[in-house]
Amino acid sequence: MAAITLLTDFGQADHYVACMKGVILQRAPTAQIIDVTHMIRPQDVVHGAFVLRQVFEYCPPGTIHIAVIDPGVGSRRRIMAARYGSQTILAPDNGLLTFIHRDFVLEELRVVENSRLYENDVSNTFHGRDIFAPVAGHLWQGMLMEKVGPLARELELLNIDRPQMLEQGGVEGKVLYIDHFGNLITNISEGELGKLRGGIQRHGVSVGPLRVGTVRTTYSDVRPGEIVALIGSTGMLEVAVNQGSAAKHLQASPGTIILVR
Amino acid sequence: MAAITLLTDFGQADHYVACMKGVILQRAPTAQIIDVTHMIRPQDVVHGAFVLRQVFEYCPPGTIHIAVIDPGVGSRRRIMAARYGSQTILAPDNGLLTFIHRDFVLEELRVVENSRLYENDVSNTFHGRDIFAPVAGHLWQGMLMEKVGPLARELELLNIDRPQMLEQGGVEGKVLYIDHFGNLITNISEGELGKLRGGIQRHGVSVGPLRVGTVRTTYSDVRPGEIVALIGSTGMLEVAVNQGSAAKHLQASPGTIILVR
Amino acid sequence: MAAITLLTDFGQADHYVACMKGVILQRAPTAQIIDVTHMIRPQDVVHGAFVLRQVFEYCPPGTIHIAVIDPGVGSRRRIMAARYGSQTILAPDNGLLTFIHRDFVLEELRVVENSRLYENDVSNTFHGRDIFAPVAGHLWQGMLMEKVGPLARELELLNIDRPQMLEQGGVEGKVLYIDHFGNLITNISEGELGKLRGGIQRHGVSVGPLRVGTVRTTYSDVRPGEIVALIGSTGMLEVAVNQGSAAKHLQASPGTIILVR
Repeated sequence: MAAITLLTDFGQADHYVACMKGVILQRAPTAQIIDVTHMIRPQDVVHGAFVLRQVFEYCPPGTIHIAVIDPGVGSRRRIMAARYGSQTILAPDNGLLTFIHRDFVLEELRVVENSRLYENDVSNTFHGRDIFAPVAGHLWQGMLMEKVGPLARELELLNIDRPQMLEQGGVEGKVLYIDHFGNLITNISEGELGKLRGGIQRHGVSVGPLRVGTVRTTYSDVRPGEIVALIGSTGMLEVAVNQGSAAKHLQASPGTIILVR
Repeated sequence: MAAITLLTDFGQADHYVACMKGVILQRAPTAQIIDVTHMIRPQDVVHGAFVLRQVFEYCPPGTIHIAVIDPGVGSRRRIMAARYGSQTILAPDNGLLTFIHRDFVLEELRVVENSRLYENDVSNTFHGRDIFAPVAGHLWQGMLMEKVGPLARELELLNIDRPQMLEQGGVEGKVLYIDHFGNLITNISEGELGKLRGGIQRHGVSVGPLRVGTVRTTYSDVRPGEIVALIGSTGMLEVAVNQGSAAKHLQASPGTIILVR
Repeated sequence: MAAITLLTDFGQADHYVACMKGVILQRAPTAQIIDVTHMIRPQDVVHGAFVLRQVFEYCPPGTIHIAVIDPGVGSRRRIMAARYGSQTILAPDNGLLTFIHRDFVLEELRVVENSRLYENDVSNTFHGRDIFAPVAGHLWQGMLMEKVGPLARELELLNIDRPQMLEQGGVEGKVLYIDHFGNLITNISEGELGKLRGGIQRHGVSVGPLRVGTVRTTYSDVRPGEIVALIGSTGMLEVAVNQGSAAKHLQASPGTIILVR
């Protein structure tokens, strides 16, 4: 009864996503299909990898994920089937698995090559429909993962900036991701903040040149319209504006420097 | 076999909604999960309350609704579990239930407090995932509602403007809501129009200073591009432009005065 | 166990879609409901007809489709129930079935008229909720299609421009549709290109006055940011920019002339 999730950059106004669902249902008629999002910025593998990592942690055992942010579709890039714990992910080999690979134990990694599992006519530009969807349908039906293709040893990983501990104390990181609310999610984890000398309460957070105060607990610890730094629901340091958009307010974007000192 | 619906302001580009679905499926693997919308304007409780009311009327008995427009997340605001008829709603205590509470009979009202039902680690900023989703999953599994927490006597209700009957005859209301098509949905109900002296056909509708004619039956009663007033599918007086946007055409917004006289 | 799909121009921020789903679930509590899209441009029947055609091809036997792009709602326009192969479509009689009708065999065509199948109160402006959804629920439950209403002989079809074979060789077509990525999908099919004298490799593609080269295989056959013509996943000639938007780059829109010569 496992679910199949879909994560793409296909948008929501075209036929692409529904074609994938049709193909899945042809092979797995009672599968629960969950849209993660189709609004990943076109070809933005980092965005996709971050969202996939967050969702992965909360899905039930047996879930099959399809992730298609795939600027190399139709080229020689490989398609991978990876099992971490008891969940399986199908994704192009372009770094989409980076954050999951960092945080979970890889159980099995294969290259998807068995064209007998595909749609009869495979296009050069829409492998989501012609390869990913039918392979996921077969896996959902209980097909052994070894049928998709040979074992692989390596997969592409993104080169993600890690925060730097500063000699004079404190840590320097970056904005990793900006969410729908305009919250700035950084690459500084709660664990890294826990290592700070003197404790986190003795440190202030800066976004670029602007000091935004100490790390608080939740948005409403400040008044509406005010800036607040806190540990967000992803376990990362986050900068927000209570009932507003920190991205607009602070003119921040992915890559903006975040200092804790 | 009841469905679980989701109504949030989380948008569609992040991991938030899919994390909630993953948590629900962990507890209710075969639940039908219905997205109402995740495009409520951020923190706009009135918008959310209106949409929730409309959907509630058309859902089957037993439906469990999760509504998370929650600017006060992590503060002391309460989370309520409310049963109207045979449907159950989980929502922060901030007015989201206002329109349902006005129109349906409350059967049971409780404060969600039983932390044994929650995710193990409850964040301060994402109760949708950590509290609402797991509690809904437990309820879907048949857990008695009394397990969520103690009975409550009162809940927060929004102070919604009611239309005013005018001494010289007629009624004055407001634009309550503007939909995707740019239709102006007002706070004047078909019932209120029915009380007008001389009947509705002897009255004209004005949007601000602009007269838009009598109340018609449907959009195509006027030519494409022309303005039409009618009783919309919500049972409220509505002003539309046939195959166009009344909001753009009339530069109207929520709060714009509507006169019927 | 068939799925019910929904294709509308209702957008995603209102109650409209979820009201339809509630009504469907009242009659078909275990139906798998698949959103095709609700982002068809308001009242754009051509856009809707194209997307419906693409999805139709990939859906399982027995699928029931609801398509509501319906500028004539509440007027005397008819609602049709059409069966092609073993799939059924409910749609207003305004051309939405054009592309499916061209490419698939019509098995049965009826006018939806049996008001006993409808919601008790039928609005004049929201037949998606009050007529389409309940009728689809009944069909899903196994109701014979003849119960919806009498047989019909004809249905409205859009007057779609076909590409013209040129006397001096080559073919002239148009941009039919622009997708989320900004890819230009034309009305020139792979079959038409196959008829070109000397083979497709001896012909170049032009978008308006701009030559964009021969027909390639996939996006990554050119460098990022460069223009590429190829046979897209719909089987039609397509013009794209690798990892970019051809619509922006070439300032093209539906109707822009495409020459292959």
